[in-house]
Amino acid sequence: MSSFTTISWKNNKVMMIDQRKLPVEEIYNEYESHEEVADAIKNMVIRGAPAIGVAAAMGIALWAVRTSPDSSEKFIQEMEDVCDLFAGTRPTAVNLFWAIERMRNCVRENINLDIHSLRNLLKEEAVRILNEDIETCRKIGDNGSQLLDRNTTVFTHCNAGGLATAGYGTALGVIRSAHNQGKNISVISSETRPFLQGARLTAWELSRDNIPVTLITDSMAGHVISRGMVNAVIVGADRIASNGDVANKIGTYTLSVLARYHNIPFYVAAPVSTIDFSCDSGDYIPIEQRDSREITHIEGKRIAADVEIYNPAFDITPNENVTCIITEKGIVTPPYQKTIRKLMD
Amino acid sequence: MSSFTTISWKNNKVMMIDQRKLPVEEIYNEYESHEEVADAIKNMVIRGAPAIGVAAAMGIALWAVRTSPDSSEKFIQEMEDVCDLFAGTRPTAVNLFWAIERMRNCVRENINLDIHSLRNLLKEEAVRILNEDIETCRKIGDNGSQLLDRNTTVFTHCNAGGLATAGYGTALGVIRSAHNQGKNISVISSETRPFLQGARLTAWELSRDNIPVTLITDSMAGHVISRGMVNAVIVGADRIASNGDVANKIGTYTLSVLARYHNIPFYVAAPVSTIDFSCDSGDYIPIEQRDSREITHIEGKRIAADVEIYNPAFDITPNENVTCIITEKGIVTPPYQKTIRKLMD
Repeated sequence: MSSFTTISWKNNKVMMIDQRKLPVEEIYNEYESHEEVADAIKNMVIRGAPAIGVAAAMGIALWAVRTSPDSSEKFIQEMEDVCDLFAGTRPTAVNLFWAIERMRNCVRENINLDIHSLRNLLKEEAVRILNEDIETCRKIGDNGSQLLDRNTTVFTHCNAGGLATAGYGTALGVIRSAHNQGKNISVISSETRPFLQGARLTAWELSRDNIPVTLITDSMAGHVISRGMVNAVIVGADRIASNGDVANKIGTYTLSVLARYHNIPFYVAAPVSTIDFSCDSGDYIPIEQRDSREITHIEGKRIAADVEIYNPAFDITPNENVTCIITEKGIVTPPYQKTIRKLMD
Repeated sequence: MSSFTTISWKNNKVMMIDQRKLPVEEIYNEYESHEEVADAIKNMVIRGAPAIGVAAAMGIALWAVRTSPDSSEKFIQEMEDVCDLFAGTRPTAVNLFWAIERMRNCVRENINLDIHSLRNLLKEEAVRILNEDIETCRKIGDNGSQLLDRNTTVFTHCNAGGLATAGYGTALGVIRSAHNQGKNISVISSETRPFLQGARLTAWELSRDNIPVTLITDSMAGHVISRGMVNAVIVGADRIASNGDVANKIGTYTLSVLARYHNIPFYVAAPVSTIDFSCDSGDYIPIEQRDSREITHIEGKRIAADVEIYNPAFDITPNENVTCIITEKGIVTPPYQKTIRKLMD
């Protein structure tokens, strides 16, 4: 496990480490309402596809334990609005919709129970989603670790770590497992502009857990790869189409081209809940456009001229650039159209 | 011409726009000693290979007009120390050494003149280097413009503009010429971490001269190129080996791979003074490593966890990724080993 707690349920409140404040301050925020949790997702107090899923589930549970409508019908009606609120927070990460759906199903399958029981079921389901995520990430980590040699330098982008999940990580889960097994793993992390998840989160998380990490700017990726300093690239994913196309943090596509050009493996580590089986290809994955201030300002200070800004938060890596996908159910290899379908069972 | 003045000689002083303050403030600093000018180069008040060459020449001239040794011999001795000081400011840009050599030759060829005459010769030579740079960049611009279609979106990295030269630019000189010829040119500029020359300088310079520019982070290059949003990449150079390998701002190599992968042209625009004819390949070009604080801090504030940092300022793009090199003497195409040698005459 990581040595910090990304998100937890405590005395009918949700606790989250404030990822906007890291690495300078390690602050844990307490949330008492689902609206606050939805804002926290939107404003990136918490981010990372699996963590967003957990946060949405906990936000819905927070609503459930606090609401007191006069009938089960009203409870269920109200819940639809709450689910819609969470579905509107971030468009790309599919784990969000997956977690909301699990919460919805929990009620659908127990439609005849009273409000008190539904409330408890939702609370239990949210905590279950959190615990399952940790277990899932451990399995991803152990599966992926097999791909790494005894002495390996891994390149990673953004933060697909304990901070992006309930606590173990997907890409960093693989690194964590290999490290725990005594392998000599070191990491090169790109800073990941504009939000600096690599510089602020991945670098913090790995150094805190004593895994050697070197930080570079995103532009240096080609240089370090071309100099033979990298043995493998491992990234997480925000959504994987059923053909193996991967939506992940902007910059991932560039890395996949560099890996392919230099003949090093490009691994994607993600839970099966990141796969959108209903999505045929990356062309259909919506790409979130974020505020231009993320690029033009840092800490409230202008760092760029006042010109037009383009700020897509994600890009699509086509399946042909993906060496394999590391899931909790095993390592998935091309042809993805066939192998991904098998995971549906 | 650009609508600002990068560097000029005025009343035996050197004026420079302070590029560390742009785009927030447009401040012109006045330098009265060569030591100040050397510091300004080191601290990146002025940067960009041709501009550094001009600044070094002007710094040497500043020394010349102020020193009063009792013999020409002492003058020449002293000058060696001054030249060494400038040679030690930045290691990669070869224009620096080229400009110092021109100043040295100016004295060598007139060794019998008195101090007063040598002083004037050096002052004139520095101003000549500045004026020639503007003329050279215009020719580069006009030569390169022929490569651009009527409607073109150019991707550029760092700042190879008026701010990186005496006022017209190399890569941005090509864009400026095409724009002046009435072509419909728009630019996508990468922000260029860590020093943000794209965000701060290129975006400012182009918008000031009414050339449409969109700013993105470095990590977005692959995404915009893969979406067909870019027709050509044009960058400057800090040193070109005689085989056509190009040292330029870190991140250039990644762009060259992306351009090649997506079959769009990758142009390097540079004066012949950027070519190091004595250097057989990029393997022999020294890469400057800069302070880790450039990555970990912005405006004095920590933006990254406290981990190991790797901060090379430049990378090497191998000649096979360079479609052609645009110089004032014409467009140079592969095989560079042959075509570059011809430029020596």
